[in-house]
Amino acid sequence: MKSITSSANPMYKELKLLATSSQARRKAGRTLLDGVHLAQSYLQHVGLPALCVVSETALLNAEVASLLAQCEAGAVKCVVLPDPHYHVLSQVEHGVGLLFVIDTPKSVVPSALTQSAVLLDNLQDPGNLGSILRSAAAAGIKQVYCSGGTAFAWSPKVLRAGMGAHFLLEIFEGVDLAAVVAHARIPVLATSSYATQSVFQADLTGPVAWLFGHEGQGLAEDLLQLASQHVVIPHLGPMESLNVAAAAAICFFEQVRQTQK
Amino acid sequence: MKSITSSANPMYKELKLLATSSQARRKAGRTLLDGVHLAQSYLQHVGLPALCVVSETALLNAEVASLLAQCEAGAVKCVVLPDPHYHVLSQVEHGVGLLFVIDTPKSVVPSALTQSAVLLDNLQDPGNLGSILRSAAAAGIKQVYCSGGTAFAWSPKVLRAGMGAHFLLEIFEGVDLAAVVAHARIPVLATSSYATQSVFQADLTGPVAWLFGHEGQGLAEDLLQLASQHVVIPHLGPMESLNVAAAAAICFFEQVRQTQK
Repeated sequence: MKSITSSANPMYKELKLLATSSQARRKAGRTLLDGVHLAQSYLQHVGLPALCVVSETALLNAEVASLLAQCEAGAVKCVVLPDPHYHVLSQVEHGVGLLFVIDTPKSVVPSALTQSAVLLDNLQDPGNLGSILRSAAAAGIKQVYCSGGTAFAWSPKVLRAGMGAHFLLEIFEGVDLAAVVAHARIPVLATSSYATQSVFQADLTGPVAWLFGHEGQGLAEDLLQLASQHVVIPHLGPMESLNVAAAAAICFFEQVRQTQK
Repeated sequence: MKSITSSANPMYKELKLLATSSQARRKAGRTLLDGVHLAQSYLQHVGLPALCVVSETALLNAEVASLLAQCEAGAVKCVVLPDPHYHVLSQVEHGVGLLFVIDTPKSVVPSALTQSAVLLDNLQDPGNLGSILRSAAAAGIKQVYCSGGTAFAWSPKVLRAGMGAHFLLEIFEGVDLAAVVAHARIPVLATSSYATQSVFQADLTGPVAWLFGHEGQGLAEDLLQLASQHVVIPHLGPMESLNVAAAAAICFFEQVRQTQK
């Protein structure tokens, strides 16, 4: 295990760049997983990381020691940093002191949409994106298509909110959603407060794709028009709309309910 | 309409304190509503604010001018600030330049729980709290009980995420939830991954109260034991858990579905 003590060390400088710059993460095709839970999920569902980084204090933690041992057994490069150097890399307050550096998967968009999926158009908030990925994975949905304007799915914030969902999903980014919808072989559903059919009346017993849009502006008009069905989540109170991640959870789990019946 | 140009002005100093200090907001029993949407919802569902604050630039905006006219017609004190002074008060980037100062309502906890409600134990994240309030209001739930450890419901962040839900709900804060559950005359449901009954099988056709807990640790064990029923949100994928606001939305709208059937 290598110990880095100088902040001028080239590997440390590279880690700092990955930790602080979204552009650097996209360019390098790498990102950081922060904390024991994400690291465990990654080992369980994907495999070994490219690099394992721990703080000096974290070496005393039994869970970290066990993860470190797994990495070393798999010949993963492991690095120990003095606590102040480590904390520059982590966005998690009172975190345990463990980071995995991983290669972000590059998935090729399938030629046709044939299984249940989520299509996200211009979704902005990392917390909402993470929550939607988590709900999708829990609902057994396996594919997520993100438009170019959607938040970067592999940012530390989205990874944290996703709680490991990323490793159960195929996530396609920078996707032309109109083309995906045009080539869909399954119904593509969009929620709309103007729809006459309730999501609870829609037939969700087969695979469907769910379209969700921007937090403020909703779905782009062209995509709304391309959707094969519009459904409304019925309200009993005079609220105009739901948070997009809440709406997505309701839709995905209505699909779960109908599938399990 | 009063124009304040000095940052040493006592009213401006008070506004700055309200904008930046949660403690000051709690002490004063006042908070800030930021933006046209919250202001409109407040006028529609509650009434006139204590004070209306606008930036110089916002005076040119037609929606702001209309809200300002309503305030002035109701003899509400209105204040114009130079843009740089205004921006110190607002957390909204590229906001329109309108703030309402309002008195936070003080609700007295009813002696018994008799209508559908949400009980929040130690919920931390303002975005989650706002999303839950929004889902509850949309589902026709009218009461929300927050434990002392739950995020302050009237903070600007929670208000923004709530999108006006606050004005459709009775929100009780600093509540002893164990006492509320003990005096409940309706079923109190808690979600648990160990439950054998699915939320989709539970009878939600009458009023029920929903218990949700801390984002990481879940519901306190004593509250979980006090709940009259435990229900599970069935998962089709190997995700451990859902975001708490997503779980709440699924529960509230399963209740809507069963009520509407």
